[in-house]
Amino acid sequence: MTTNHLNLSRRIRRTPFTEKVEALGVRGYSVVNHMLLPKAFATSVEDDYWHLRAHVQMWDVACQRQVDIRGADAARLVQWMTPRNLSKARAGDCLYAPLVDESGGIINDPVILKLASDHFRLSIADSDVLLWAKGLALGAGMDVVIEEPDVSPLAIQGPRAEALMSAVFGERIREIRFFKFARFEFMGSSHVIARSGYSRQDGFEIYLEDSRLGAALWDRLWEAGQAFNIRPGCPNLIERIEGGLLSYGNEMTRKNNPLECGLAAFCDLDEPLDCIGGGALRAIKAAGITRQIRGLIFDGDPCPPCATPWPVRRAQGNDRAAPVGEVTSAAYSPRLRANVALAMMNNGFRAPGERVLVHSADSQTRAGVVSALPFA
Amino acid sequence: MTTNHLNLSRRIRRTPFTEKVEALGVRGYSVVNHMLLPKAFATSVEDDYWHLRAHVQMWDVACQRQVDIRGADAARLVQWMTPRNLSKARAGDCLYAPLVDESGGIINDPVILKLASDHFRLSIADSDVLLWAKGLALGAGMDVVIEEPDVSPLAIQGPRAEALMSAVFGERIREIRFFKFARFEFMGSSHVIARSGYSRQDGFEIYLEDSRLGAALWDRLWEAGQAFNIRPGCPNLIERIEGGLLSYGNEMTRKNNPLECGLAAFCDLDEPLDCIGGGALRAIKAAGITRQIRGLIFDGDPCPPCATPWPVRRAQGNDRAAPVGEVTSAAYSPRLRANVALAMMNNGFRAPGERVLVHSADSQTRAGVVSALPFA
Repeated sequence: MTTNHLNLSRRIRRTPFTEKVEALGVRGYSVVNHMLLPKAFATSVEDDYWHLRAHVQMWDVACQRQVDIRGADAARLVQWMTPRNLSKARAGDCLYAPLVDESGGIINDPVILKLASDHFRLSIADSDVLLWAKGLALGAGMDVVIEEPDVSPLAIQGPRAEALMSAVFGERIREIRFFKFARFEFMGSSHVIARSGYSRQDGFEIYLEDSRLGAALWDRLWEAGQAFNIRPGCPNLIERIEGGLLSYGNEMTRKNNPLECGLAAFCDLDEPLDCIGGGALRAIKAAGITRQIRGLIFDGDPCPPCATPWPVRRAQGNDRAAPVGEVTSAAYSPRLRANVALAMMNNGFRAPGERVLVHSADSQTRAGVVSALPFA
Repeated sequence: MTTNHLNLSRRIRRTPFTEKVEALGVRGYSVVNHMLLPKAFATSVEDDYWHLRAHVQMWDVACQRQVDIRGADAARLVQWMTPRNLSKARAGDCLYAPLVDESGGIINDPVILKLASDHFRLSIADSDVLLWAKGLALGAGMDVVIEEPDVSPLAIQGPRAEALMSAVFGERIREIRFFKFARFEFMGSSHVIARSGYSRQDGFEIYLEDSRLGAALWDRLWEAGQAFNIRPGCPNLIERIEGGLLSYGNEMTRKNNPLECGLAAFCDLDEPLDCIGGGALRAIKAAGITRQIRGLIFDGDPCPPCATPWPVRRAQGNDRAAPVGEVTSAAYSPRLRANVALAMMNNGFRAPGERVLVHSADSQTRAGVVSALPFA
């Protein structure tokens, strides 16, 4: 096993919270949107999983960079970028929305925050949506201003999130419903706070609008969080897989369409939207998808990380048979006492209960069963 | 000091050469274009520096992803993306070319390979040029096909590069002049080989066109390279700084224009090109730039990596005075027996010989002198 040290440079941007996570002993990072995403602290992923389900965690997710789009053509451009119908959205709404290209391939899957009728922010996964949006706008001659603002999300996740957030921001925080946001004061300036986040344990995302306040915001929440057994954390691989939360670049790439990724509910294909890829997605829907994202439970020792897709084969096949699917993310679940995975499964092999073989990167062949998402 | 382990997932893509660099004991990575870039092996950066200047190294630079643009409007689109005049380029030319946005801010600085009059490949630095190009083309309704092909650059760098390459690909390799390319056979398929690379030590980049051949290509060069004292390597920070080679995301971002980055020679602003940002760059040129990239030599212990820009202040100022520049990359040069850096220096402080103070991340204040680029 080789060591995977991450070499640091300015190109891999630090966040307003990096000093704080360093002080708390961060041990590992990933890189998202050219920015550090803390991924490991002193405790194990399993231990963090149990903690996240019982208490509250603070996550530096500043790498969810913001693409700010405003101007006379802002609403038209944002609608052009997604097959989800945005026409009924109101200011204060968060909308999970796949962005697709002209073939229906997924470009990103941001949460779109509607700030005003002519002002949107896309809180993005790992691809340069800023360049995509700017290219479209420049090519089409649209009247918009597109930029990356000084906005850095900090996530408070876990069942005690509401209690902690109300201690810091007041009781009004409890009124924010799921996927809604409101503005709150911190140190004299105003910040968007949404009820959202990359877990299934309830929580909030604070869109800090001034990176100079990062350390103060972290400290304030950290101190108030002591009463709630707070820990530094990060999106938890086990909890995310169990919850069926997809990750752009892992479960879906530009070679996938939202229909096979289980995102049909976010594609309003029956409505006459002027959106890129709408025709392609309607054609895919009419022809029928050929594969679909599924859960997979499989046995054996706790599996290694999935760094390249693992082939899934039919239970009665041999090792050289064509795969019938592929695992894209996997982890050992201490709660289910089995390995859990997200997998793209071909037609004929995607029914829950289907028995398959998983060929994990450690050269083990493991017996598995297809599951619905989220896992029970 | 915290540990910076890189957490692996499918989203951080492996390359066709990753297994080989793992077998050779890679110790550190960076992430470029959502892909692994090996950055450290068993030997030190200083040792690798001396080796690169004397022998030959093989670098996995598959992260220099390719943006393939072809079709009736390909030449028009590529010209639209850069202020460099491409009209005289011929098939077989490599052209270093800044890409800029409508304000003249740098989007990327690829090497453009002209394959045919209607077919270009952009070998890119760390930003999603594919999305930028697709956005522009879709917005403007251009007749082009844009995709990321299965092409993975492998660099052979160092003074013995030509000897090694001719041993593997034949004597014809010696005829390739700097920033030209030709096609060569390997295992029955054809691959572009260019005389180019991210060092000042001569060398080649092999654009492997089939990732399944990655291991075989690596092995073939590794075996032939034994006679030339070959090592696995990576872009060497010391050699790159001394050579004045800029790194997108480090020395230049979208907040920089090519004129202040010393790239005026690649901006044909006096010619009537239909290019994005041409007007903005002409206005910047007319008003005069306010800062410029420079070398900087400074004393003290070998400096730490530069993970955020370090302030540079006037030699007679105090620690609270406004910076007059910033260091963006720095390393200790064992040849010059001093620290060397690339720095963006304000007007009035950018003349070679100017004495300044560098405030490095280790809280040291170091005496420095501005230098021309490349370093002597």
